[in-house]
Amino acid sequence: MRMYDIILKKRDGGVLDRSEIEFWIGGCVRGTIPDYQTAALLMAIYFRGLSRRETSDLTLSMYKSGDTVDLSELPGIKVDKHSTGGVGDKTTLVLAPLVASAGVPVAKMSGRGLGHTGGTVDKLESIPGFRVEMDRREFIRQVGKIGLAVVAQTGNLVPADKKLYSLRDVTATVDQVSLIAASIMSKKLASGAGAVVLDVKAGRGAFMKDAEGAEDLARLMVDIGSSLGLRTAALITAMDQPLGLAVGNALEVREAIETLQGGGPGDLRELSLVIGAEMVVLAGRARTTSEAREMLEKNLVSGMALAKFREMISAQGGDPAVLDNPGLIPEAAGKTAIKAESGGYLSRCDAMGIGLAAMNLGAGRETKESAIDLAAGVVLHKKEGQRVAAGEVLATLHHNPGARLEMAVELARRSFAVQQSPPPAGPLIIRKI
Amino acid sequence: MRMYDIILKKRDGGVLDRSEIEFWIGGCVRGTIPDYQTAALLMAIYFRGLSRRETSDLTLSMYKSGDTVDLSELPGIKVDKHSTGGVGDKTTLVLAPLVASAGVPVAKMSGRGLGHTGGTVDKLESIPGFRVEMDRREFIRQVGKIGLAVVAQTGNLVPADKKLYSLRDVTATVDQVSLIAASIMSKKLASGAGAVVLDVKAGRGAFMKDAEGAEDLARLMVDIGSSLGLRTAALITAMDQPLGLAVGNALEVREAIETLQGGGPGDLRELSLVIGAEMVVLAGRARTTSEAREMLEKNLVSGMALAKFREMISAQGGDPAVLDNPGLIPEAAGKTAIKAESGGYLSRCDAMGIGLAAMNLGAGRETKESAIDLAAGVVLHKKEGQRVAAGEVLATLHHNPGARLEMAVELARRSFAVQQSPPPAGPLIIRKI
Repeated sequence: MRMYDIILKKRDGGVLDRSEIEFWIGGCVRGTIPDYQTAALLMAIYFRGLSRRETSDLTLSMYKSGDTVDLSELPGIKVDKHSTGGVGDKTTLVLAPLVASAGVPVAKMSGRGLGHTGGTVDKLESIPGFRVEMDRREFIRQVGKIGLAVVAQTGNLVPADKKLYSLRDVTATVDQVSLIAASIMSKKLASGAGAVVLDVKAGRGAFMKDAEGAEDLARLMVDIGSSLGLRTAALITAMDQPLGLAVGNALEVREAIETLQGGGPGDLRELSLVIGAEMVVLAGRARTTSEAREMLEKNLVSGMALAKFREMISAQGGDPAVLDNPGLIPEAAGKTAIKAESGGYLSRCDAMGIGLAAMNLGAGRETKESAIDLAAGVVLHKKEGQRVAAGEVLATLHHNPGARLEMAVELARRSFAVQQSPPPAGPLIIRKI
Repeated sequence: MRMYDIILKKRDGGVLDRSEIEFWIGGCVRGTIPDYQTAALLMAIYFRGLSRRETSDLTLSMYKSGDTVDLSELPGIKVDKHSTGGVGDKTTLVLAPLVASAGVPVAKMSGRGLGHTGGTVDKLESIPGFRVEMDRREFIRQVGKIGLAVVAQTGNLVPADKKLYSLRDVTATVDQVSLIAASIMSKKLASGAGAVVLDVKAGRGAFMKDAEGAEDLARLMVDIGSSLGLRTAALITAMDQPLGLAVGNALEVREAIETLQGGGPGDLRELSLVIGAEMVVLAGRARTTSEAREMLEKNLVSGMALAKFREMISAQGGDPAVLDNPGLIPEAAGKTAIKAESGGYLSRCDAMGIGLAAMNLGAGRETKESAIDLAAGVVLHKKEGQRVAAGEVLATLHHNPGARLEMAVELARRSFAVQQSPPPAGPLIIRKI
């Protein structure tokens, strides 16, 4: 078999068979196929696409390219969740303890973030003492004991994805639906879960700008999941404005705690309940999502979800006192208000703009090597559709010395628009696949 | 400027400007742009194409990537010719002395061949003593003195083409008309000629299988030539069956000598006169091609063309006695006849099959490192449309010990087809652009 023939076949619109895809991915990871041939094939795939079957074969080949996590010694169906990424998306912080409190084992490996804020494990590190690095045995032991662990990814999971992504990133071949789907699903398979709920974001602040593109991606991933024995559900959810009010690592942890205490912003609470209910049903702990949702709402009110979070913080070396005294979480020295120039209705609160503002304040990483300021970020005071008076504070920037404040202020300012009539409101949950 | 943005622009159907193309080619040759980015761009170009203007800018950037030959000290318009490659194509051997005999200076640098036979300089090496390696000064001095030199390429001419071709060759991006045109025209510009006649082959034995594809390529090259100040004419010529009767280095030299002596196969003689006439007109030595053709025909008959070849052989250290005694040219020890199985009309004499047979006999190179058997090859006795009797010899294979004779016999046999009715005959010169 020759890589040249595989490139030619795809270039000419042919369908690659499983052995060809395995040859490519295996050779790409081992380094026997040069990067320029993989780059040419990726561009050919960009133009020709991959069939459902090819995408499923690619997912499987990528999954098999490295280590996999074996969670089989843990009883029950382990359910994972995945978000395609949005601004202010701290649902995992709420969902993991919430779903675990309903008896669903949550063994979550999470990445560090690259972009406007850190990833889930970066956020958790704003809890004093919290340890996200943990070996595989310890991780499984903790899930066995308290039903919950959220840790940083360890081991050589899906090296094919790392390799392909690094090439896609520099060859303008990131935005291809089958390559995205295979990347996500291969990692979910390798993480050892038996079921997964996908939160596919659509909107200005998401990778997929429109709901149609998001739906195509979601359907493809659900199909691949089924074809590979992974129970998969997907939701298309809105990402025009940030989720909740807080954007930034420590700020998001505070908001997650409020939500686990039964409060928190309405959209964050709602999304957590909707995704959580899907997870509970996939895990077989409820027959319907409404039954599942009722369980979860009860656990928010009763404090069981918060108690589960407390257990996890203690188990991972963190100080559980943060739950009673959020002042223990790092706070930025400086605060700068962004005010409305005129009164009316907030018609735009641009997630991408707010995300970039947060990154300029130090909340995110521009490169893998960048350091994060856990305390930095943006807190919104208004969301789209709400009335605002001229001069009223729309958002507060949280920053420490060294932040690119001027740039952040400019980006934040431009993220807002106010108009005289109430803007049309779109749904938070756009569709369920 | 970032290579990423250039790839993205072309991927999305944009038109690259000159500075972007220069950035790419410069970085590619210097090694500051990694091969995987060039490979991705090449594939995007395969799908999106390049405009006339982009192709012309690419040609210019490639031309400027290395050394160029300066022929300005030689008087008159130096005319080059280029063939896109066919089986049995020894026209340069005839054309160079023929055109030089009409007073057109011919300063020809030629490559070694990769494929079914050697290139022009390999062929010339079957003349005992003939030297094709010559430094730039000596080369120009010889042209100044006798009006003719055919030597091997020296110096670092168009390194961008070497680099791009080596990547295209392994990423299935060779057959893209703009990339082909830029490759050919950049080399013609760098060789220092002021005018060029292009022989674009079309047919089973050519890169371009159909006349339409060949015409697109020819028109594009003529346009690029004009836009870059190189006077360019192009002919589309047939390459379904080999040109002439001989395929193989020494065998082709013998046939070229016969043609310069006023004989030779009709198609070789005709093509040499047609291309030669174009060259003479472009050089300003005749006003019309019919006037030019008359001059050239006269020089074939009078022996002036042969005399010019004799001068060149002497000047380059070869033994001019080969012209009187072709037995001095190497001859293979073994001869194997391919006979017609049935009688009728020869309806197919497949150039590609005959070329591959010759390569298996040792006439060509499979890799750059392969050694060539100068004496090996195929001599046809019949061409398409001719009557053949059952058992009549269609071709003779010339071979030395070590040839893959069995394979060559099989390939040669399969190249021929005989039918009962005369096949339709296509023209040799399909079109003039």
